[in-house]
Amino acid sequence: MSKFLNKSILNVKNQCPLIHNITNYVTVNDVANILLAVGASPVMSDEIEDVKEMSAISSGVNINVGTLNARTIASMFEAGRIANEKNKVVVLDPVGAGATSLRTNVCKELIEKVHFDVIKGNMSEIKTLANIFCKESNDVDGSQDAGATKGVDVNENDAISEENSAQNIMVVKQLAKAVNSIVVATGKFDLISDGEKTAIVKNGHALMGKVCGTGCMMSGLLAAFVAANQESSQSKFEAVCACICSMGIVGERSVKSLKEGEGNLTLRNKIIDGFMFIDDDGLESEAKIEFC
Amino acid sequence: MSKFLNKSILNVKNQCPLIHNITNYVTVNDVANILLAVGASPVMSDEIEDVKEMSAISSGVNINVGTLNARTIASMFEAGRIANEKNKVVVLDPVGAGATSLRTNVCKELIEKVHFDVIKGNMSEIKTLANIFCKESNDVDGSQDAGATKGVDVNENDAISEENSAQNIMVVKQLAKAVNSIVVATGKFDLISDGEKTAIVKNGHALMGKVCGTGCMMSGLLAAFVAANQESSQSKFEAVCACICSMGIVGERSVKSLKEGEGNLTLRNKIIDGFMFIDDDGLESEAKIEFC
Amino acid sequence: MSKFLNKSILNVKNQCPLIHNITNYVTVNDVANILLAVGASPVMSDEIEDVKEMSAISSGVNINVGTLNARTIASMFEAGRIANEKNKVVVLDPVGAGATSLRTNVCKELIEKVHFDVIKGNMSEIKTLANIFCKESNDVDGSQDAGATKGVDVNENDAISEENSAQNIMVVKQLAKAVNSIVVATGKFDLISDGEKTAIVKNGHALMGKVCGTGCMMSGLLAAFVAANQESSQSKFEAVCACICSMGIVGERSVKSLKEGEGNLTLRNKIIDGFMFIDDDGLESEAKIEFC
Repeated sequence: MSKFLNKSILNVKNQCPLIHNITNYVTVNDVANILLAVGASPVMSDEIEDVKEMSAISSGVNINVGTLNARTIASMFEAGRIANEKNKVVVLDPVGAGATSLRTNVCKELIEKVHFDVIKGNMSEIKTLANIFCKESNDVDGSQDAGATKGVDVNENDAISEENSAQNIMVVKQLAKAVNSIVVATGKFDLISDGEKTAIVKNGHALMGKVCGTGCMMSGLLAAFVAANQESSQSKFEAVCACICSMGIVGERSVKSLKEGEGNLTLRNKIIDGFMFIDDDGLESEAKIEFC
Repeated sequence: MSKFLNKSILNVKNQCPLIHNITNYVTVNDVANILLAVGASPVMSDEIEDVKEMSAISSGVNINVGTLNARTIASMFEAGRIANEKNKVVVLDPVGAGATSLRTNVCKELIEKVHFDVIKGNMSEIKTLANIFCKESNDVDGSQDAGATKGVDVNENDAISEENSAQNIMVVKQLAKAVNSIVVATGKFDLISDGEKTAIVKNGHALMGKVCGTGCMMSGLLAAFVAANQESSQSKFEAVCACICSMGIVGERSVKSLKEGEGNLTLRNKIIDGFMFIDDDGLESEAKIEFC
Repeated sequence: MSKFLNKSILNVKNQCPLIHNITNYVTVNDVANILLAVGASPVMSDEIEDVKEMSAISSGVNINVGTLNARTIASMFEAGRIANEKNKVVVLDPVGAGATSLRTNVCKELIEKVHFDVIKGNMSEIKTLANIFCKESNDVDGSQDAGATKGVDVNENDAISEENSAQNIMVVKQLAKAVNSIVVATGKFDLISDGEKTAIVKNGHALMGKVCGTGCMMSGLLAAFVAANQESSQSKFEAVCACICSMGIVGERSVKSLKEGEGNLTLRNKIIDGFMFIDDDGLESEAKIEFC
């Protein structure tokens, strides 16, 4: 699996996939700019009539429920339907699932009606979904009740740590198997599973939690990485790993380069800037990824 | 009242209050990032079904009418109702009241139906509201007619100056008394009153007027500061003063650190960054606040 | 026509025109900040009831269909109607015309019902419109079918080059004549025509294509530049040329000042910052504009 990072990234740069985003209005600009930085072509469109054609001409669809409303929810279902019909890559970011019942229910129904290539959330969101789709399991101790997720942030009881990562990777793996998606849970460590293979990524830095939108940017990037690496289920899994590693590595590099007095906005800018220069030689050696 | 700045800020950092924002899509990212910078946890949600639960699990609600529409207006009323019912802090930013009748009328009705802990606007917006709620007063010479506010900017005839600050603080005080809120009018000086106590803050810098969203960021911060300092009406008033002072001080520091060729976008970035380092020793000595 | 750059810009700074924007939620913050940087006063409002009054008190209206929906489409028509009725400057940015039929059709109807002072798009968008409004012409080889535009980016077959600029300027000129607007097609070179006079601007840098929103910022600026330079059709045409040149020059200066590791986000920030200092002596000498 060596050199899969650079290979995955190079495919994005060379193919410049058009990524159709239905995402929240909070971090939408960052998603657009990071997609441009990595070499993809972003488009945002959330009106159902427009979505039909936009999803159809795109290579990947990124659905993020961060500021969902009745109008855009309908568009999310339509975009997912079209993506499945036309064999486009489609990614779900279940922002705030577990915080309110609308968010939880919309994500539940989206997963029931749309096959997602990738589902990425924090551990509270992933546990909320695992509780719905892995009912047979007794291993998931999180809750799908409203309020289990702290707004759009992980509940501190759910946060991935050294101690609970083995248990959490089981949850991620079970959900992946149940919904037939690659599932990513982000946190101190990032956990990735397609239901068979699993990976733990230990890149990243705590300060990234102070930057609004790193998760949303990751979803956009995931759509681009997978869209450009679709040959096999192995290449898709590697693309997801490459994407998660890259965000962590760029985050580390960006934190390291912060000068005195520079805070979260500068860090955001550096992370986006950093994706313009991510295809370098050092990348593979900086990756902290374990497959299990 | 010494050391109230650091105390108020420290409470935000320690409590990490969840702030539910229904705010405009222009500056929403800045609001989220400045809340993260100061140590709060932001969430954005504006669909009425979602708002009910999100306001209920939050510590403070920030309502900003900057890009209001029929759908989000209904959500604002619901968020305010829930906030009052559940004893959550709720802040109003009446963006553009006095510019159009929709904005003026929505703000009027919001204040009639919701008790706001804090109302913060520029002097044109505050005069517009004072004309509505302080009808007995002959002191308010502004107008509530559409067009009195220049879009979302203060009408230059209303702008707070050395000469008119005494008269303007009367308007702020009267409105505060009439609606039982802490009222803040921002400008060259910032005027604060709870109807009894009043304060004038002389921090800040004219260049901040070139940065889109300093006012919106302030509203988000006000919700966080007051949510984390609710013990008494005195601590709430101090939290508002601390918040307004902090924005001015961070603004001054940021302007001072601008290099040649750096303009309003860099200033915006520096202001947000600056709130990550606001709990320092120098803060109290830089505050230019007079109580009267 | 010498010194028209500084004259046009100085008029913006001195008049501080209020610009009403109905624009997409992706780049709206950049549009607001660049308008503030150049000395204009931005306001965003997209609810039809609000739009009526906001367009009426503004000096210029900027309509950008980047994230259009049924609600905001109605507001765009109303804002255009009011702008025409009250003799306000009105600009159209037909984002994604040619990518989906909704975008193409809305732009078509807007141009049929509203007289636009300026229409600015990439060459795929402009060809899409030329195919609709210049049916007698056999020179336009682009297509108005859905998918001709790559999302919101130019189709590479349409991209303006040294080889095709003569042919493309004919398309721009014909569209300008047909719809009685100043038409701007952006790309490697920017082509400008009012149906009689034409200009080619060779300022700018390829890296600007990596920055999300340079086009949207340009539309906002066009509304401000033309609003502040309305004396004659000549001064309007010069204002458009000055605006397009300025963006290119500021872009060149910004790229030149990038340090190692700085990417598209830093470039975006520098471009906005740069408009605060655009009224300098060097400007005229850096302009690469040819009139024909």
